[in-house]
Amino acid sequence: MKFQDVISINDFGKEEIEYVLKTAKRLENELNERKILQYAKGKILATLFFEPSTRTRFSFESAMHRLGGSVIGFAEASSSSVKKGESLMDTIRTVEKYADVIVIRHPREGAARLAAEIAEIPVINAGDGANQHPTQTLLDLYTIKKEFGRIDRLKIALLGDLKYGRTVHSLAKALSYYDVKLYFVAPQGLEMPRHIVEEISDKLEITETNDLESVIPEVDILYTTRIQKERFPDPAEYNKIKGSYRVDLKLLERAKETLKIMHPLPRVDEISYEVDKTQYSAYFRQVWSGVPVRMALLGIVLGVVE
Amino acid sequence: MKFQDVISINDFGKEEIEYVLKTAKRLENELNERKILQYAKGKILATLFFEPSTRTRFSFESAMHRLGGSVIGFAEASSSSVKKGESLMDTIRTVEKYADVIVIRHPREGAARLAAEIAEIPVINAGDGANQHPTQTLLDLYTIKKEFGRIDRLKIALLGDLKYGRTVHSLAKALSYYDVKLYFVAPQGLEMPRHIVEEISDKLEITETNDLESVIPEVDILYTTRIQKERFPDPAEYNKIKGSYRVDLKLLERAKETLKIMHPLPRVDEISYEVDKTQYSAYFRQVWSGVPVRMALLGIVLGVVE
Amino acid sequence: MKFQDVISINDFGKEEIEYVLKTAKRLENELNERKILQYAKGKILATLFFEPSTRTRFSFESAMHRLGGSVIGFAEASSSSVKKGESLMDTIRTVEKYADVIVIRHPREGAARLAAEIAEIPVINAGDGANQHPTQTLLDLYTIKKEFGRIDRLKIALLGDLKYGRTVHSLAKALSYYDVKLYFVAPQGLEMPRHIVEEISDKLEITETNDLESVIPEVDILYTTRIQKERFPDPAEYNKIKGSYRVDLKLLERAKETLKIMHPLPRVDEISYEVDKTQYSAYFRQVWSGVPVRMALLGIVLGVVE
Repeated sequence: MKFQDVISINDFGKEEIEYVLKTAKRLENELNERKILQYAKGKILATLFFEPSTRTRFSFESAMHRLGGSVIGFAEASSSSVKKGESLMDTIRTVEKYADVIVIRHPREGAARLAAEIAEIPVINAGDGANQHPTQTLLDLYTIKKEFGRIDRLKIALLGDLKYGRTVHSLAKALSYYDVKLYFVAPQGLEMPRHIVEEISDKLEITETNDLESVIPEVDILYTTRIQKERFPDPAEYNKIKGSYRVDLKLLERAKETLKIMHPLPRVDEISYEVDKTQYSAYFRQVWSGVPVRMALLGIVLGVVE
Repeated sequence: MKFQDVISINDFGKEEIEYVLKTAKRLENELNERKILQYAKGKILATLFFEPSTRTRFSFESAMHRLGGSVIGFAEASSSSVKKGESLMDTIRTVEKYADVIVIRHPREGAARLAAEIAEIPVINAGDGANQHPTQTLLDLYTIKKEFGRIDRLKIALLGDLKYGRTVHSLAKALSYYDVKLYFVAPQGLEMPRHIVEEISDKLEITETNDLESVIPEVDILYTTRIQKERFPDPAEYNKIKGSYRVDLKLLERAKETLKIMHPLPRVDEISYEVDKTQYSAYFRQVWSGVPVRMALLGIVLGVVE
Repeated sequence: MKFQDVISINDFGKEEIEYVLKTAKRLENELNERKILQYAKGKILATLFFEPSTRTRFSFESAMHRLGGSVIGFAEASSSSVKKGESLMDTIRTVEKYADVIVIRHPREGAARLAAEIAEIPVINAGDGANQHPTQTLLDLYTIKKEFGRIDRLKIALLGDLKYGRTVHSLAKALSYYDVKLYFVAPQGLEMPRHIVEEISDKLEITETNDLESVIPEVDILYTTRIQKERFPDPAEYNKIKGSYRVDLKLLERAKETLKIMHPLPRVDEISYEVDKTQYSAYFRQVWSGVPVRMALLGIVLGVVE
């Protein structure tokens, strides 16, 4: 199997997803055997971060180095030619002469797709505005599979701002390939958009609620995201809601022993620090998943890993 | 042949230029054969960009990685010790302890020459203010040679702001080593400086004009540069002129079939996007030329490529 | 011998110091034999510079590349997730998934210690506020040993702002392991803190003075640091003092022939440029010492060099 670009999780069928997860697993095993990999030796990754994201950038750069490759790039738009008024089109046509693969993060929706259409070399979307962040979804799936040995037959709650959070939109769609039960847990006004619920509701069972406590005893995975303060016109409203969606030890008293909590990070205070040391926290292992998954994606689009 | 620094195209005789072009060609061939080169293995390039230039920085870093070397550096002065008031002299004396070759871009004329005089390791000028950008000139010559198989016996028009554009100054001088006919096409007030015209006019034939249309049918190469808005006290004046120096399909109707258009990039709107897909456009291949030419220069000054 | 982190020079006994110096010497010899080292091949260094320091960052990155390893990182906090309100704790727990060793510079005292306590991978302190900068002290000691073949039996003056300068605090403590005579030469009000003098005064002989001229004929090493303008409420006061602590040729007329001047750099004008060319100046060789010493530290904490 071979694909050229990674732009939207919607471009991935179940077969492609499984292929990425399997390849990532194999690469992780090779790392664990302390092998020094050279799949991407002589290859160059260009990381074009038109808006900053240390976590995502580091994760891709680490993945490229772990494959034996090199990296050039910028961490924010200010130091790029963009300042001189260059179009994204010309930037891409230029950078593709200097690299073998491009990873792009851009504040504008559709920027990554445009880049992929222009470039002759592969392009990976590391987030285009509120739109897509497909490698996050793939590493989320990888984490679930690693934690439970499977994705099927799990009960998964998505918690927080489900209206604006691109992470949970993509994850919900990708999970619809699997035999799972989903819970959408959001404060009033931040519910999962209708079109997404409708798109996937014939494939799997969905429960929508704004009562986190009632859901906790049932689920295997609690996928938490930030509730963004700036969404609320009234700060008092925000503070009230924030408290009722905070994951802490008290809430977890009623959880299954095997519950795993995930979070795309960075967190602000959705998850209490006291939770970090419990058996529930999977979010830092989730961070690690970014490396093998991005190694797999880089390796596949570069044609150096099968 | 061996040289230590690359500061000004004026330091290069025809023999040195030809040597660089030949070396670049050989390295490009090796890349095309999909070889992983290791000429600069264990060597470190320090890129000191006191003003940002993504294109030039990426090009040098890509070249160094393609040679198997490593890179350290900064992309703009703000994150450097300059903030603490350190002199350029001390910065150079420090950085040379950490690297094997320095590439410097600096807003001040003469900064690169000063750096080369101080440093015991090689220094390459990646642009010092309005003064010199010798590696651009070398990649321009490389591109011409690649497009036509030769530089001699070509008719070459330099178009745009010929008064302030360092790129066209250097290129004109370097072309005077060859048997070419030059056309200087500039709006009134932005003509090529007298001293450059006089310096080279006994070596080759020069036509000066501000009528682009009359020149188009004659030339083999149209080297276009930005006409900078800020040069014009009256915006209306700028807009009028801009239009008459814009390269578009209509203008090209009267061009030779084999005409090639070059541009050092980034462009703003001197060349219409519709031109990109025609057989005339050579400017993105010109971008690519930066890699083998800078590989050659890095390899030569490091003493690892002959 | 093995240690996990490098946080404070106070954690180092004489044995550890000597071990680092010996390892650095061996690595420097290998570099001098033009070997391409691969001790850290496949390893990744993350440089987290929450405040900029080109010199220190370049020095660590150069050291990592000279060991054959790779580097990811940021050069100032602005482009990091810190902006999104992430805690240092979460940043460290994230970055440790992407790298094999962390080098951190942070404006807050204790930040490096906190990072080391959190991280499972090794952490090296590249300066935490006014507190510690242990690798500077180790490279200072390395430089002294290289210049004189020994540290014992030397007379060493520390000059400048001894009250706030972390460099001289750490160096004074580390020198107390050796049989040296120290001179603390500071303007009134910027003397070495009492607690440091008391801590080490029973181990070695100390002379405190604010008269630089009287000390010059006696010492083997003059370790100069910046006198920071902002410490003085009255600029006139600063200017008067500045002049009397400036190292220039006139002052050096009365120095020993073998005197060596050191400075952690960057300098502003504590040392006159005319001194650079004399036999006294050791400060640029001191810069170079940063590379083998940091190679040794990286190699030791990574467990790839013994």
